[in-house]
Amino acid sequence: LYLWNYFFVSYASIFDYVNFFGLRKMISSVDQDFIGELRGIVGAKHVVTAAAELEPLLSDWRGRYQGNALCAVYPQSTAEVSAIVQACNRSEVSIVPQGGNTGMCGAATPQGGRQIVLRLDRLNRIRHVSPLDNAMVVGAGCILADLQNAAEEIDRLLPLSLGAEGSCQIGGNIATNAGGTAVLRYGPMRDLVLGLEVVLPNGEVLNDLKRLRKDNTGYALRHLFIGAEGTLGIITAAAIKIFPRPKANAMAMAAMADVDSALRLMALARAELGDRIAAFEVMSESQMALVCEHIPGAARPFNAPHGWYVLIEIDDTLATSNLADQLEGTLGTALEQGIVEDAVVPSSTAQKAALWRLRHSVSEANKIAGVSVSYDSAVPLDEQAAFVAKVSEGISKAFSDARVLFVGHLGDGNIHAIAHFDKDRFSSKEAFEAAADVINRIVDDATVDCDGSISAEHGIGISHRHRLAETIDPVRLALMHRIKALLDPDGLMNPGKVLVPPPAGSTEAPGARRIA
Amino acid sequence: LYLWNYFFVSYASIFDYVNFFGLRKMISSVDQDFIGELRGIVGAKHVVTAAAELEPLLSDWRGRYQGNALCAVYPQSTAEVSAIVQACNRSEVSIVPQGGNTGMCGAATPQGGRQIVLRLDRLNRIRHVSPLDNAMVVGAGCILADLQNAAEEIDRLLPLSLGAEGSCQIGGNIATNAGGTAVLRYGPMRDLVLGLEVVLPNGEVLNDLKRLRKDNTGYALRHLFIGAEGTLGIITAAAIKIFPRPKANAMAMAAMADVDSALRLMALARAELGDRIAAFEVMSESQMALVCEHIPGAARPFNAPHGWYVLIEIDDTLATSNLADQLEGTLGTALEQGIVEDAVVPSSTAQKAALWRLRHSVSEANKIAGVSVSYDSAVPLDEQAAFVAKVSEGISKAFSDARVLFVGHLGDGNIHAIAHFDKDRFSSKEAFEAAADVINRIVDDATVDCDGSISAEHGIGISHRHRLAETIDPVRLALMHRIKALLDPDGLMNPGKVLVPPPAGSTEAPGARRIA
Repeated sequence: LYLWNYFFVSYASIFDYVNFFGLRKMISSVDQDFIGELRGIVGAKHVVTAAAELEPLLSDWRGRYQGNALCAVYPQSTAEVSAIVQACNRSEVSIVPQGGNTGMCGAATPQGGRQIVLRLDRLNRIRHVSPLDNAMVVGAGCILADLQNAAEEIDRLLPLSLGAEGSCQIGGNIATNAGGTAVLRYGPMRDLVLGLEVVLPNGEVLNDLKRLRKDNTGYALRHLFIGAEGTLGIITAAAIKIFPRPKANAMAMAAMADVDSALRLMALARAELGDRIAAFEVMSESQMALVCEHIPGAARPFNAPHGWYVLIEIDDTLATSNLADQLEGTLGTALEQGIVEDAVVPSSTAQKAALWRLRHSVSEANKIAGVSVSYDSAVPLDEQAAFVAKVSEGISKAFSDARVLFVGHLGDGNIHAIAHFDKDRFSSKEAFEAAADVINRIVDDATVDCDGSISAEHGIGISHRHRLAETIDPVRLALMHRIKALLDPDGLMNPGKVLVPPPAGSTEAPGARRIA
Repeated sequence: LYLWNYFFVSYASIFDYVNFFGLRKMISSVDQDFIGELRGIVGAKHVVTAAAELEPLLSDWRGRYQGNALCAVYPQSTAEVSAIVQACNRSEVSIVPQGGNTGMCGAATPQGGRQIVLRLDRLNRIRHVSPLDNAMVVGAGCILADLQNAAEEIDRLLPLSLGAEGSCQIGGNIATNAGGTAVLRYGPMRDLVLGLEVVLPNGEVLNDLKRLRKDNTGYALRHLFIGAEGTLGIITAAAIKIFPRPKANAMAMAAMADVDSALRLMALARAELGDRIAAFEVMSESQMALVCEHIPGAARPFNAPHGWYVLIEIDDTLATSNLADQLEGTLGTALEQGIVEDAVVPSSTAQKAALWRLRHSVSEANKIAGVSVSYDSAVPLDEQAAFVAKVSEGISKAFSDARVLFVGHLGDGNIHAIAHFDKDRFSSKEAFEAAADVINRIVDDATVDCDGSISAEHGIGISHRHRLAETIDPVRLALMHRIKALLDPDGLMNPGKVLVPPPAGSTEAPGARRIA
């Protein structure tokens, strides 16, 4: 996961910004009573109202959204979460569930009004570890890195891995269906969840926490809550998969003419190396050029520039596997077939690190070099070439001075298109945002044309709810609204996230229609 | 997937049986008009009312349930399915979606009343094949074996494999979240579905058919329909995953003292061989003894009986992998550690087939030897030993002459417990069913105690809806009813399957309560 410099980019940011700039409303006596009730549930010291402590919870970590809340509350059990939700129902107070507050789209940021922030930090107990089942049952507040370590202690791998892993919480990872660097091999967070415990918007506790690989007892309700960003309930615990640890590893960088060749290499590697492929990252020469120009010591490992570059890493649970030979064999075939123009297989850990550094320096290089509008598209692999062409042509036509960069996790279809400009290109934030709006339209149109998704791994939150409503199937959108209205008829659970709320005074959720 | 001899076993069969014994109601003029309307949608020859053609669609293939229907209708497009559903809404006629009619629990059998059978046979077009994406987009009526062949033609594997693959349809596989022999490595059908197209109970067409590995645009609605057995809508098309084909293979049979040792071997094999493990099947000596006694030519490949047996198969996409060496290495370690008492690695295809035949002959042997009550439990691996002990003790205590057999897909937690009796043990079907009721209770209690599932892969249908309601979390059950009532307020979509319908005249779905 790379932290793209989205800072200035918002399709709907003008409407969505809620800035209080430190102003706090006076708290009414009704609210005082409500806060007293929460103190009765969790203990006085676990209800935070002091501005200094509350402030960091009221904005997202990228500093893009800022809201307000009556307080933040830190329950220590599922029963306490249920009691809090029931109290909020009685007092008609909205709830914003918050894990590590590291999300990319503002899903954990309160927007003001009568809201509380519900922090899961204290639900951080590992309830059960089963090496036999390759499963762990964990509280929602467990820090991802702590769970990775717990898995490592029993020689297992928790594959979810992303930049924020030192502070993000597993409940938030599940609520946002987090992606990261291991999706190609292990799938996104959704694929790692065997069971969930959820406090529903009415305070009931849904127990679907089984650690089973096979269970055909009715509707798989857990999937409703995975990726719902806390709008349908509060995840309090999860049964998650862990895996045998890889014991052998090899990597290479290959250079090729175009994205089509990168895709052909992908197909060849999948056929020959199968599930061993742990990473298949791609970068356009336009992107590589910025990295090599602006990052000290960064250099292409080839004699001359090529059109595109692939970074491939494979691993295996068998320590005896000779992966370097296998990888060289596949690359040899690719060279013979003219798919690849050149390739390097590093012979030392330092060389490996240098190659990965080219990939990891993208965000920093782009920031040094200018300003960016970046996207988180997923596109079917057999549409990637068309997507790259459409986006390149569209942006170049609209802005002849734009550099069009591509970088991403090609293996899982997640390609980040970036329009990059010189630092002084836009005279004002407004001018920049107007350009971003134009580019949004170009990329969204290309994404829809190519049967893709506007949000591969970052989610929707506040940032993309209008783009979501404009780009997905209307029947799907309407059914989302109907599900939301069913589970949360009063709209108290993380309101305004994922879905644009129905107009005030509307008695019917959007889409609650019948056509027959 | 093995076809267990459940024939006589039903927890609720007394209440659920609907037998018409060939009697057909006279068709009213209202129904005549309705059938005429269906003929207008799909063409006269695609509406079947003749008894001889209709009869086979009115009972399940195991012959356990028999119902009635006004007609069977064979649409050829999603639009036609939508038009049929809208017509059914207007005329208040129920719809029973039916694929290949090979289900285990009666989910595709109409129960009488004003119902139609909606057959998906003609939605059998492969819309798109993408070797790059490792994905296919297919109509719901495609036969599973045809899709396996289509994958093979592009050197890919569609791993779903089960006994009925020559006639079952992919739509039914998805609607029942089919299991089969490849779950350990590739997951159940649910894990193979990237996207769905569904005609909702009101006739709207939900388009969520993207073939993406990453898509975080809101609620993952497709999972509602996977495993819902046609009670929430009609699956008309799916985007499914395919995989690189394995090119190397090895297998072995190991013998050990108890199920605990089988589990330790599983852990060792997973750690050393990782994802290569394609099958990890287990059998108790009590089961092996019946096979060796009753199947001509069947014999244990060991000098003496052992307590339990494991059949392990591994494969690899790399043709050069020396899998036999790897498997022998792991078994050698298991012998050294005292996990395994003996092991054989077959050296010829004939020897391999002979080992697999021991496993595949279970159903036949048990049928020859007597009468069975069989179960489809999933239990966490670290509870398997406790489950085996509880079930063995419970059944032996209740029926001292019962043989307690175990056989199953241990790797994915799916263990089939079987109570086996001599042929003449029960004087009547009633006496047998009374015994089955007692054993149901023993196995269900053990399953719940061990945090397991009463239906690992067969589903619920008509057969297990009462057991479902008694064994799962009541909040989960209530939410299922609320989802059902939301999507299908008039209860027209495959009524009486999965969920026990609310009492007649009830205006509120069970569980539509608020506790706050």
